[in-house]
Order: sequence, then C-alpha cells, then structure tokens
Amino acid sequence: MKKVFPALAVAGLLTSPSVAQSVKRSDYPIQAVAFTKVKLADNFWLPRLKTNTDVTIPASFQRCEATNRVKNFEMAAAKSGKFATTFPFDDTDIYKTIEGASYSLSLYPDQKLESYIDELITKVGKAQEPDGYLYTARTIDPAHPHAWAGNTRWEKERELSHELYNSGHLYESAVAHYEATGKKNLLNIALKNADLVCATFGPGKRAVAPGHEIVEMGLVKLYRVTGKPEYLSTAKFFIEQRGQYKGYDPKSSDAWRNGSYWQDHKSVYDQKEAVGHAVRAEYLYSAMADVAALTGDQKMLASVDSIWNNMVTKKLYVTGGTGAVPGGERFGGNYELPNGTAYNETCASVANVYWNQRMFLLHGDSKYVDVMEKVLYNGLISGVGLDGKSFFYSNAMQIKNSAVFGQSEPERAGWFECSCCPTNLARLFPSLPGYVYAQKANDVYVNLFINGTTDLNVNKQAVRITQQNNYPWNGDLKFTVAPKSSADFNLLVRLPGWARNEAVPSNLYTFAAPSPEQVSIKVNGKAQPYTMRNGYAVLARKWKKNDVVEVALPMETRKVVANPNVRDDVGKVALQRGPVVYCAEWKDNDGRTSNIVVPAATRFTASYKPDVLNGITELTATVPVVKVDAANNSISTVQQTLTAIPYYAWANRGKGEMTVWFPERITDVDLITRKVEEKIVAK
Amino acid sequence: MKKVFPALAVAGLLTSPSVAQSVKRSDYPIQAVAFTKVKLADNFWLPRLKTNTDVTIPASFQRCEATNRVKNFEMAAAKSGKFATTFPFDDTDIYKTIEGASYSLSLYPDQKLESYIDELITKVGKAQEPDGYLYTARTIDPAHPHAWAGNTRWEKERELSHELYNSGHLYESAVAHYEATGKKNLLNIALKNADLVCATFGPGKRAVAPGHEIVEMGLVKLYRVTGKPEYLSTAKFFIEQRGQYKGYDPKSSDAWRNGSYWQDHKSVYDQKEAVGHAVRAEYLYSAMADVAALTGDQKMLASVDSIWNNMVTKKLYVTGGTGAVPGGERFGGNYELPNGTAYNETCASVANVYWNQRMFLLHGDSKYVDVMEKVLYNGLISGVGLDGKSFFYSNAMQIKNSAVFGQSEPERAGWFECSCCPTNLARLFPSLPGYVYAQKANDVYVNLFINGTTDLNVNKQAVRITQQNNYPWNGDLKFTVAPKSSADFNLLVRLPGWARNEAVPSNLYTFAAPSPEQVSIKVNGKAQPYTMRNGYAVLARKWKKNDVVEVALPMETRKVVANPNVRDDVGKVALQRGPVVYCAEWKDNDGRTSNIVVPAATRFTASYKPDVLNGITELTATVPVVKVDAANNSISTVQQTLTAIPYYAWANRGKGEMTVWFPERITDVDLITRKVEEKIVAK
Repeated sequence: MKKVFPALAVAGLLTSPSVAQSVKRSDYPIQAVAFTKVKLADNFWLPRLKTNTDVTIPASFQRCEATNRVKNFEMAAAKSGKFATTFPFDDTDIYKTIEGASYSLSLYPDQKLESYIDELITKVGKAQEPDGYLYTARTIDPAHPHAWAGNTRWEKERELSHELYNSGHLYESAVAHYEATGKKNLLNIALKNADLVCATFGPGKRAVAPGHEIVEMGLVKLYRVTGKPEYLSTAKFFIEQRGQYKGYDPKSSDAWRNGSYWQDHKSVYDQKEAVGHAVRAEYLYSAMADVAALTGDQKMLASVDSIWNNMVTKKLYVTGGTGAVPGGERFGGNYELPNGTAYNETCASVANVYWNQRMFLLHGDSKYVDVMEKVLYNGLISGVGLDGKSFFYSNAMQIKNSAVFGQSEPERAGWFECSCCPTNLARLFPSLPGYVYAQKANDVYVNLFINGTTDLNVNKQAVRITQQNNYPWNGDLKFTVAPKSSADFNLLVRLPGWARNEAVPSNLYTFAAPSPEQVSIKVNGKAQPYTMRNGYAVLARKWKKNDVVEVALPMETRKVVANPNVRDDVGKVALQRGPVVYCAEWKDNDGRTSNIVVPAATRFTASYKPDVLNGITELTATVPVVKVDAANNSISTVQQTLTAIPYYAWANRGKGEMTVWFPERITDVDLITRKVEEKIVAK
Repeated sequence: MKKVFPALAVAGLLTSPSVAQSVKRSDYPIQAVAFTKVKLADNFWLPRLKTNTDVTIPASFQRCEATNRVKNFEMAAAKSGKFATTFPFDDTDIYKTIEGASYSLSLYPDQKLESYIDELITKVGKAQEPDGYLYTARTIDPAHPHAWAGNTRWEKERELSHELYNSGHLYESAVAHYEATGKKNLLNIALKNADLVCATFGPGKRAVAPGHEIVEMGLVKLYRVTGKPEYLSTAKFFIEQRGQYKGYDPKSSDAWRNGSYWQDHKSVYDQKEAVGHAVRAEYLYSAMADVAALTGDQKMLASVDSIWNNMVTKKLYVTGGTGAVPGGERFGGNYELPNGTAYNETCASVANVYWNQRMFLLHGDSKYVDVMEKVLYNGLISGVGLDGKSFFYSNAMQIKNSAVFGQSEPERAGWFECSCCPTNLARLFPSLPGYVYAQKANDVYVNLFINGTTDLNVNKQAVRITQQNNYPWNGDLKFTVAPKSSADFNLLVRLPGWARNEAVPSNLYTFAAPSPEQVSIKVNGKAQPYTMRNGYAVLARKWKKNDVVEVALPMETRKVVANPNVRDDVGKVALQRGPVVYCAEWKDNDGRTSNIVVPAATRFTASYKPDVLNGITELTATVPVVKVDAANNSISTVQQTLTAIPYYAWANRGKGEMTVWFPERITDVDLITRKVEEKIVAK
C-alpha cells in the first residue's frame, strides 16, 4: 500500500530498518491503488455512494445515539450506569460508521462530519481503560458485566463475549480514519488496544480462537500501517488457534457442537472447505490471505486457495450470495443452494468483497475480481433499498405467495437490534474507489469499470487514467491514458469471465449457449493486438498522452444454467446481462412470478428505462404463464409478457413474488390447497 | 383370561391359595374372551387368516430355515460354528412364527404343523444354556459373540444386544403355544429363561431399561398363566428402570442422544407423550397398561392414559398408522403427520392393536376399540399383499411420481433381512378371534363385527352368540343370542365412533358433515330401547333362546377433515365409509392421482365389486383433474371419474401414484421442472 511509508513517518513508528525491511518484504505481490487516489464520476455507483453519505451514514450515527450505543461509551468513561443496549458488540456499530464516514470524507469533504467524528473518537478514547482495554459492556460496571462478557476479561471470547471482535472493528475503523484524514486520534486508541491484545495473547500467553473473526484482519491492517511485527504475528497466532479447543463433539452434526460454526472444528491448515457462519468464515479467510501473503506461509495459502475453490464451485449463489442456511447464517453442504430459504446475509457479501480483493492481490488472477464484481452488482447492493435506509439482512432468491414453510425476507427492514448489515454497507460503499485499480511495478490493473480518474506513479512517472463508460448497461468501455510524457508500461484490462463465456470461474454456473460476439480492443481507433494473462488483456506499448483505449464487451442477454447437483435449479434458467443478474418481480408481471415459464427458445429484448428504479436496463419476452382459477378449480396456461429487472433492484415497490430461476419446461405440478399463509421470514 | 385356572391346573403351578388369590386379585377389570372360545365364519377376515395360515406362516418357517435362523439354534446347541445371520434378534422370527402357527392351530388343526413346531421347540430347548439363558448370538461361541452382544451377558442390553427382546418374544410365543395346544414344552423353556431373568434383574440386583421393550409384556403373560408374582414384579421393575440412565444429553435434539428413541429420557411416571421408536413405545405402553391393571398402580395408569391421549389426538394417521418419522421409525412431534414421508411401520400397527385392547380391558370404553378397528381395517392389513407373501414395512400415505425427496415404500417387498413385520403379522392375524368379545360378570361386550360364534359362560349358564353380517361393506349387523335357557344379562354392542359422527375419539380427525342417519337397534324385529355406556349400546333383558338383535349402522361415504395443525392435510379431505378409509390409486385413475381435486360438492357412489381385489366396495365420482402437457408447456383442468378403493388394498396391481388426502380446492400450483427422479424409499 503506497501510503505505508508516509504513514509510518507520520505515525513516527517506523524506527528500525529491520521493521522497514519487514514491511517491504512482507507486502502483497500486487498493490491496490488506495481509495484516496481514485476520484469517481460514475452514473451507476456515485449516486449510491452519495445516498450512503447523505442518508445511510447520518441515519446510522443518529441511530447509534438514539439507541444508546454512544451512551454506552459515555457510561464506560464514567464507570457508572448499566449497559444500555442488547449485545456487547453494539460498540462496533460506532466503529463501522466512523469507518464508513472516514472513507466518505475523501469522496465528499465535510468539516461538520469530520468534527462530529472527532467528538465520537474522544468519547471512545475516554471509554478505554488505562491499559488499553476497550469494551463498554464490561468497563461500565466490571462487577456486573453483560451476561455475554463473563466475569473476567476474555473468559468467554471463544463463544460469546466478542471482545476481540470489537477490537477488530476498532482497528479497521482506525486505519480507514487515519488514511482518509491523516489524523492519529482513533489510530492511537486502536494501537493502545492492540498492544494490550498482543501482550495478552500469544505463545506462552493466553490462547483462544476468537469467536467472531475480524481481529485478525484488523491486526494485519495495523501492521501494514505501522510495520510492527507483533501485530502480524498475533494475527497469525489467532488464526493458528483454530481447531485447538478440545471441548467439541466431532461426531455431532450440530455446527455449534462440532465447532464448524466458528471454523474451529480443525486447524486452518486442515480446512479445505468453506463452512460455518459465513461472515465469520469470510473474515477468517480474508485474514488467512493476508497472513499467507505477508508471511509467505505456503501451507496457509494452500488452505485458503482450496477453501476459495470450494466456495466458488459449490457454495456460491448466482447473485454472489453466500451462506445458504438460515440456522446459523452459515454455509450449507456442497451444492446446498436452495432458493426458497436462501439466507445470503448482506454482511457475508461485504466479507466476500474483502476476501476476493485479497485473493486477487495475492495471485493477480481476474477470476477473483469476477467473483467480486458478481457480488458488487448483485448480492451486495440488493442489501440496501434505493431509499438508502431500508436493508435486507438476508437476500432471497425466491419469494412465493404459496410458500408455507420458511422463506427469506420478502421486504427490507430498518435497522434491526443487531444492525450489523447496515453499518457494514455504510463502510463498504465509500471504500469502493480502492477496488478499481491495482499496480505491480510496470503492470497497471484495471479491475472495475467505474467512471473517474486515478493518478498513478509508474516508474516514478505520473500517469492519469480516465474511464468513461455506461457500465453495467453498456459494454463499450473507454480509457484515456495520460502519462506526463511517453512511458512504457502494461495496461492490464480485466476481460470479465462472462464476456469470455464463463458465468463464474467454475462449473457451478454456465451459460446455456456461448456468446457468438467476441471482445474487441482498439487503441486510438485501431484494433490493438493483445495477449491474455490470468484473465487480463495485456496492452503493452509506449503510452503517449491521451491515448484512447476502447474495449467492447459482448452484452447480449444470456441464460445461466446451474450445475445439476443444485437440486432447486434443475430444469431452470437464470438471466444475466453483462455482470447483472436479473429477476422477475410481481409488480411487472401481473402480480405473480412463480407461474412463469421461460422455454428454451425464448428471446429477450433489452431496453434502458431511465425512469424505472433510478434507471435500469429492463428485459422483456413473451412466455407461457400458468393461471389458477381457485373459485372454479380450473387451471390454464396463457401467453404473457415477462418483464425482468436487475436482481439488486427488487423489493423497492412493495411486497410480493420474486423469481430468479425460471423453469424452462413444466414436467408436472404440485397442487397447492391451502390459503396463502403469513410468510415465515428466515431471520 | 378364562383359561387361567385350567391352565394353572395343567401347568401344575397353582400351588398356594395366596398365588391363586394374587391371580384373582390382579386380573383385568374386563376379561377378553379367549381366541380358543371363538370360531370365525367371516367373509372379510377368514380368507385373510387362511392366507396367513396357508402362505405366510409356511413361507415364514421356510425362510427361517433358508436364512439359517434355525441353524443358529442348532449351532448354539452344538456350541460350535459362527452366528449365521445378521441380527441377534433373528431368533425372534422363529418365536413369532411359532406364536402365529399356534394361534392358527386353533383355527385350522394341523397335525403335521403341530409336530413341525414340536421339532423346532426341541431345537430351541437344546440351544438353551443350563441356567436358562437363551440367545444364540452368544451361546454359539461365547468367546466370540456377535458384535452387538458385548463380551458378557446383558452388557449391551440397553442399546444393542436385544437379549431381553428375544426373551420377551419367547414368552409371548410360549403362552400362545400353551393356550392353543395345552402343551408345556415351549412354556417350560420360557419359564426357565424367565426365572433366570428374574434372578438376574431386580432391586439390589442388575438393573437396565431394556433397549427394545417386549420382555415386560411377555413376563406379564407368564404371570397370568402361572400366577408367579416375580414375573409381574420384574416386569414392573423393567418399566420403572426407564429414565434412570444418566449418560444421555437431555439438551440434544437427537432422539438417540437424549434417550427418547428408547423411551428412556425420563421416568415412565413423568412420560406424558408418545415418543421415540413407535414399536418399542407401544410395546412399553402395552406393558404399562398391563402392570397398571394388575398392580393397581394409579400413577402408571395416569401416565399411560395421557400418552394414549397424546397419540390419538396428535400422532395418529387417519389410517391408524403411527410413527411418522422414517429416521428412527419413530413418533414425530405433535401434529407432525406428513403424507409424503409417512413411515407407519406395520409392526407399530400390530403393537397398537395390543395396546388398545389392553386399554379397553382396563377402562371398558369403546374409544379404544374404535382405534383398534381403525388400525385393523386400514393401516394394519395394508401391511401384507393379497398374495400373503409381500409386505409393507412402512405404510405410505401418498405416492407421487413428482416426489423428488424421500417418500415411503411405493410397493411391497418380500422378507427384508430384518423381517420383523412379516412375522409380526403372522402372529397377529390368527389371534384375531381373541379380540371380538369380552366379558365382565353379567356384561357381554361385542367389540368387533366379525361373523362366527362364541360360547360363553354367563352366570354359570352357557350362552352362544352368533354374528351374521357383511361388514365392513354393509352396516346391517345381526346377532343371534342363544342362552341354554332364559338368562338375564347385558349385551353391550359397540356403536363405532364413526357411526356416531366421530371420525376418531379426538379432534384430530372429524367428519366434514354429520351423518343424518341414526343407528337403529331392533330385537326380534321390534325397536329396542337402549342406554349408552362408554360408547356401547346396553341391551338389558331376559334373553331367550335365539333372540335376534339387529343393529343398523349408517354407511354413507363420509369426508374426513384433519385438525388444521396437520399442515399436510390443510384444505384436503380423506374418504371413509364405515371403518374403511379409502385411497385413489393410479390404476383406476388414468395413471395419476396427485392431480385429482375433490370439491366440497362431490357426491360418491358406492358399489360392491366381488371381482376386484378379492371383493371390495368401490367409490366413484366425477371430479376435476389437472393435466400437464410437458411438450407444449401447457396445463389444463378436465372432468374425470375418480375411483377410490380401500386403502388396505392399494399396491396390489403394480407401482404408481396413490393418494389418501385430496385437495378440495386448488388455491395455487407449484411448477415442477425436473424429470421424475427415481423414488427414494424411506426405509
């Protein structure tokens, strides 16, 4: 990360060459271009980031005040009162919102917001105990801590207390705030806490596998800012603690009893599949990628590689959602991807973005960015309504009026008591600029197609890259490359898997038919020959000021077919155009969608609708639908126009049916004989 | 039991008046008229009993020889060889078949069969160890017993060995053989084993809750034949051992881990619901009824009464089947009565007959016989094919071509390796004469409407009762009462719940509409006034030779509705006529039944078909059915004739769809998009 050295200077922490070396030695093979270096001007994303800044973040701070989350810190400072909220990890909503607000400040400078954050940071600092311990649920009244906290520090960390979870979010927040503002007030609170954690946990000291991972990622971030080896070694220590606890019953099928819920069922070196609570899991896997990259631990690398392969080939919904099982918000078995009860927690999509970004920085392969893009354009942004203040905690794959057993949330809600998802979105959205570009010496990677400019330093030469496109609706991408003066370097443009007839980089989903269209690339209007490397088109030339690169991606509507082991999707197709996965919603389809058939021959028309759902490309076709006349016990099939909208945009117009996977042919029907029951929401 | 005193005389065991007294004191309030006192001449049942005698019993003995079940006894006698079958409880197939054959001998005397049984008994006797222990899986080679047997006697009785289960079936068999033939050869083997069991288990001695109950019932039978108090007290001791084992995890939801699979999760005095493996459970509940009756234990009576109420109000299928859950062949939760995966083990129906007979003998209420009749005419006899040699282990409530997850057996099989059900039917069928009549002093109960005669002794006066009817197809019952000379006594004729608008004695199933017809009773052609007592019409008079009682039961076709808590049956109706529950089978309905709707207005025509399925009354009506044209993705509804047959008679004409519960109205359909998969059989 380019900021490391100045940061270390500012932080005044880079004391010995050995530490400096350790930092140098142990950075990622590829460097992400920091969010502070990228200015967005994008029609698709900027309005969302603006809504996040104007609505979500203020509403989140307001809620932290109204629900006494802030008061908890004030009471901890005063060492008096009674913990005023429900969960000990409620502290993290403040950290996560500060993190989001910090990223947001570099998009939209806001003096008032910045000083409000400083006030909050002061309150956080006052709640910190002299030795660095920071956990209001205990500090308020150590003699009578929250039930989950146990009687002494760390006592219940494995299963309940979330003390290290709070620390992890504190670190994430502190680094974002420091990088966005250069201020050290929150960073110093975090470092003081991290020094306590490192002094408390480690070989010959206290040991635990943190019940809810994230402290590992957080410690790595502190390490990358400060270069202090203890932070990295303690992160690795926590990761290696998994599978050490002997109190589980390996024979039990219960995820809590066998430890897999916490990814604590075996050593991470023996873990080869994505299991347990998806958010915890993907935070762990992110940290494993961090530690594998920064320590060169090949065994840990092998584990996280096979876990990723397991996830992407057997446990990923077509929308990029992960964590199929509501009970435990966790990964199911291989190919266990039911539509009716899909959980797909929004937080898991946030975690999946973190994880895949790290996998890319490790390996430099576009397949990780392909998965990240699938998550970003589908299963992640579905988590928040167009209003910016209603949220999905679980992201459904199907809503049916006739559902009589549990199904996922049919409409977005406000903040739950456990408001993990809103504040996770609040911190992810404004960090998006940090995911667009990456660099490795003379290789400049373009990962996401988001309008705006970035100023890079290639071979000590300033280079500005400007993107202009109408992605994801249009596949014509334009990049203007402007080195201060002519410069030799490679521009690596990601050619998305879907543009190369891969629905995802696995056999989990495939396109029903290969695209006849090919990707075309021109520079300054002339066809540009290029080689492919790990999914990137490598454009190698002496770049001159304002060279224009034009990339055309095939954008026809494609039918997606699932691996036949996914029971629920057998005989069905999903619709995808560019990176966007579509769904049919009741509102556009005469009130129903579970009655729609999409025969193999169906052809779709795509048309952009500026006034629909803040501007979307809509798909339409004429298809058979089944009509039931209950009064007369009669059923018939009629032709009707199917209108499909981007999956992310559903549930902004009231509650009703939604379908992602459509039957190609009806082989039979099950008669439904009861009146529609009140839907049972999975969460 | 009338036979007790002669039996004791023959057995030469009734030595002291105290024992005689103990027998007298502790008999059931009501006495069943023994199977030896009832001669059947019934068109419905006699052919079944004949098939059982001519086909099932010989085939069962043949299989016991062919599968080396007999050889196991020979090897045990020789103390050499290797246990030649799969399960230690394979011994019981011989005991159960001898039991069935013994009952059968009193229906159809057969010298050849009787001597074959004597040969078998000799082999059994030779396999018995000097101290009475009888368990071939250990005796063949005590140094290397069967894996389930453990290294020492009784060691694994709680969970695996079935040593006491074998003993229980031995006792049941020995008493039947003794009562049918008067011979003591098998009885003496049983008594020798029982004396060992009583010497081994009891207060201050070894203690265990037998893993598979039945030894308790068996010991009570030995007690009632011999009057030996130890047999009764040891039965009570075993029952009271339940809930004593401390090795379970009460918090586990796993029936094995929490002990409920074995009804071992709590003391029987605290058990209020029917739980766990249904056959084990109903054998236990039968024994609880025995012991409550014979010891006057009011607390045990209260438990078994509430367990029965739980079963009949929440865990009984409309066919009388019990044990909804395939995994563990066990009772589900309250109202957990799914049609698709219904297990309904045939052995559980056999056990349910035993249990309800005992509950009747305790309480004298017809509701127990109503449940017994429901089981006998539906869920029990469905267990064997018309050929007498194909069997259902589980009894389905629905077979659908479109079923993609597990469903019950779609067709009958031969003997499984674990051939519990065939041999259980072999012993139940010929014992049926013992369930028709009962007596308490001057009260003569008529429980089942089965043609034939019985010779009773009422007030030291001989009375012959003859039944002539065409039940269950016709509701006109005729009873000829012939006392040697005029005699005062009460004839109590059961008026079935269904004839009084009660589908079962509970709110679990009700009739859609009350029957307008009323029961009418005449004596010698004149309307006879009568009072009702516990579901019986009490006919009190001075009976003269050949008085004729005519009872007319309303026999229209009735629609049954389930309690709305039974999810699978919401909006559906079942069909019942008299005691017989009906189903639709693919063969009579254009190859499908899952597409049939039975609107509220549907009226049925009943017609007797002598040539169909050995003679049945068939129901027909014109109803809407749904037709799917897969090739054209089109669906429509057409009118078609629905033909329904008695549930017990299904699956005698090949494999295909079957439906018991019909939707009254289609509110919606689920589209099925995959090809029909190979059905997954629950067992």
